[in-house]
Amino acid sequence: MQHVAGLDFGGTSVKMGVVDQSGAIVAKDTVSMDPSMSFAAIMSSLVAALRRCVARSGVTLCAIGVGTPGFSDRGTGVLVEGCRNIPHLQGNSIGGYLGREFGVPSVADNDATSAAAGELLFGVGRRLRSFVLITIGTGVGGGLVLDGKVYRGAGGFAGEIGHMGLDPNGLWCNCGSRGCFEQYASATAIARLYAEKARKRGFPVEEGLSARGVFEAAARGDPLAADTIDAVARRIAQAFGTLLNVLNVEGCVIGGGVSQAGEAIVAPVERHLADYVWPLVRSGVRVAIAELRNDAGILGAAAGALERVT
Amino acid sequence: MQHVAGLDFGGTSVKMGVVDQSGAIVAKDTVSMDPSMSFAAIMSSLVAALRRCVARSGVTLCAIGVGTPGFSDRGTGVLVEGCRNIPHLQGNSIGGYLGREFGVPSVADNDATSAAAGELLFGVGRRLRSFVLITIGTGVGGGLVLDGKVYRGAGGFAGEIGHMGLDPNGLWCNCGSRGCFEQYASATAIARLYAEKARKRGFPVEEGLSARGVFEAAARGDPLAADTIDAVARRIAQAFGTLLNVLNVEGCVIGGGVSQAGEAIVAPVERHLADYVWPLVRSGVRVAIAELRNDAGILGAAAGALERVT
Repeated sequence: MQHVAGLDFGGTSVKMGVVDQSGAIVAKDTVSMDPSMSFAAIMSSLVAALRRCVARSGVTLCAIGVGTPGFSDRGTGVLVEGCRNIPHLQGNSIGGYLGREFGVPSVADNDATSAAAGELLFGVGRRLRSFVLITIGTGVGGGLVLDGKVYRGAGGFAGEIGHMGLDPNGLWCNCGSRGCFEQYASATAIARLYAEKARKRGFPVEEGLSARGVFEAAARGDPLAADTIDAVARRIAQAFGTLLNVLNVEGCVIGGGVSQAGEAIVAPVERHLADYVWPLVRSGVRVAIAELRNDAGILGAAAGALERVT
Repeated sequence: MQHVAGLDFGGTSVKMGVVDQSGAIVAKDTVSMDPSMSFAAIMSSLVAALRRCVARSGVTLCAIGVGTPGFSDRGTGVLVEGCRNIPHLQGNSIGGYLGREFGVPSVADNDATSAAAGELLFGVGRRLRSFVLITIGTGVGGGLVLDGKVYRGAGGFAGEIGHMGLDPNGLWCNCGSRGCFEQYASATAIARLYAEKARKRGFPVEEGLSARGVFEAAARGDPLAADTIDAVARRIAQAFGTLLNVLNVEGCVIGGGVSQAGEAIVAPVERHLADYVWPLVRSGVRVAIAELRNDAGILGAAAGALERVT
């Protein structure tokens, strides 16, 4: 049995685990991280924690996988962009550092690509050879599995699904474009759309309302919440529709925090999807929720590593 | 030196050639086809013509490739949809028929996918390992080359780029969706957009005006024609932008009849592209015209065959 490590970078902590080929986590830990620390300081505390994990598990690592916000160059491994919350990671190769410390192949992927790798090996991939994963959390990310393999793109930057342009006259995005998918479908956007609808009608809006709160309100019968979710589902359907037209994949998968809504988001996306897709490529495609929940980040990063050594 | 045949189905004729591995056409022919003929009648006249081509060239075929409008199922080879002008082809396997007659592997691809295969082997692929090809003619088609290989999708239906939804409130398309790319960028659409602009201003519109006529008018300084081309280029840029965000390919290629406009279409697409794409994936990407011109259809079909035997 081969073992790899998976490290999942969040904004203020790193989850790590030692994982076997079947997806069983044999040891794990969560390391707090002060995002203002230097790259060397962050990495040395991670290396120490990972050494403890490995010692505890009593196995030998044959590779290390890492998932981070932002994008690592496929050739050099350097994190080049999109990880603004942990500025000192950018311009450095996390995989390169871990590889030197542990003497095994080490690779870093964007966290949504990493999630897709995890789903391929341990989740929906057991029944689908190709799918698009849209991760809907604070932002919107994407991972692609084509012809049974994770697709990373020429530079390693594929899957910028949150910035697909869904409306040339739509909302301005902080990327400088208009109508980006992320403006309509992130958890942030869901809460904002609901608040806008409520304020426009003079209804009070709970301070710090979350996307989860909007789904709960809809479940209680709040029609504004239901309208918000329907509008969001339409945009998700539009994005999936375009991706199906272009890529003819077997499945559309929703991951990230918003996927916890389950059928409350899957059902309206399924209903609207036909409006945005060529019937031939719609046929037989199910919209599904990602199967990995807890430890999805660790398992995704581990899957990225297993992909390189098996 | 291996030789294959390439057959390119148009609306009323089939171009065919015997092609060697370097892309040299050693014999070719064009066979008229009455689109109302039965499948057997169409195929037997093609088989006879191809036998004559092969005899004339004095070589042995090792495979046959076919490009058609519409989509052939990747598993069965059956043309399942999108070839309305030649109704009797649908429901039949052109590759299967030719394979039985000639006793060699025979495969059919959508014509835009076929064009992408040709560009990969004999055209832009000599400097690009990944690209998106948008073919703009009577309609809009698309072909994808990812990581050095033609990408066909789970069922063989990938590349329905003409039906990417660019505007959820846009023009209705005959596919039943709104805002499809094809409504804004086909040769038909270019002529229609120009005519609409002219009529709205009370200017006379030449009967049967073509897209080429619009480009010629723009070259003569007609501001309505220039505005039309700029609007079309914006939509092409939007489509390329979304495709770059999703696929992180190295190049954006324009093929089909409209590509004859050359710099007159490339320059405005290049100019607008940054409005629709994440800067990281825009970087280093050139918009280019497809390199294969005459015989592109034969060479594309032949490339699809060579891909299977080399």
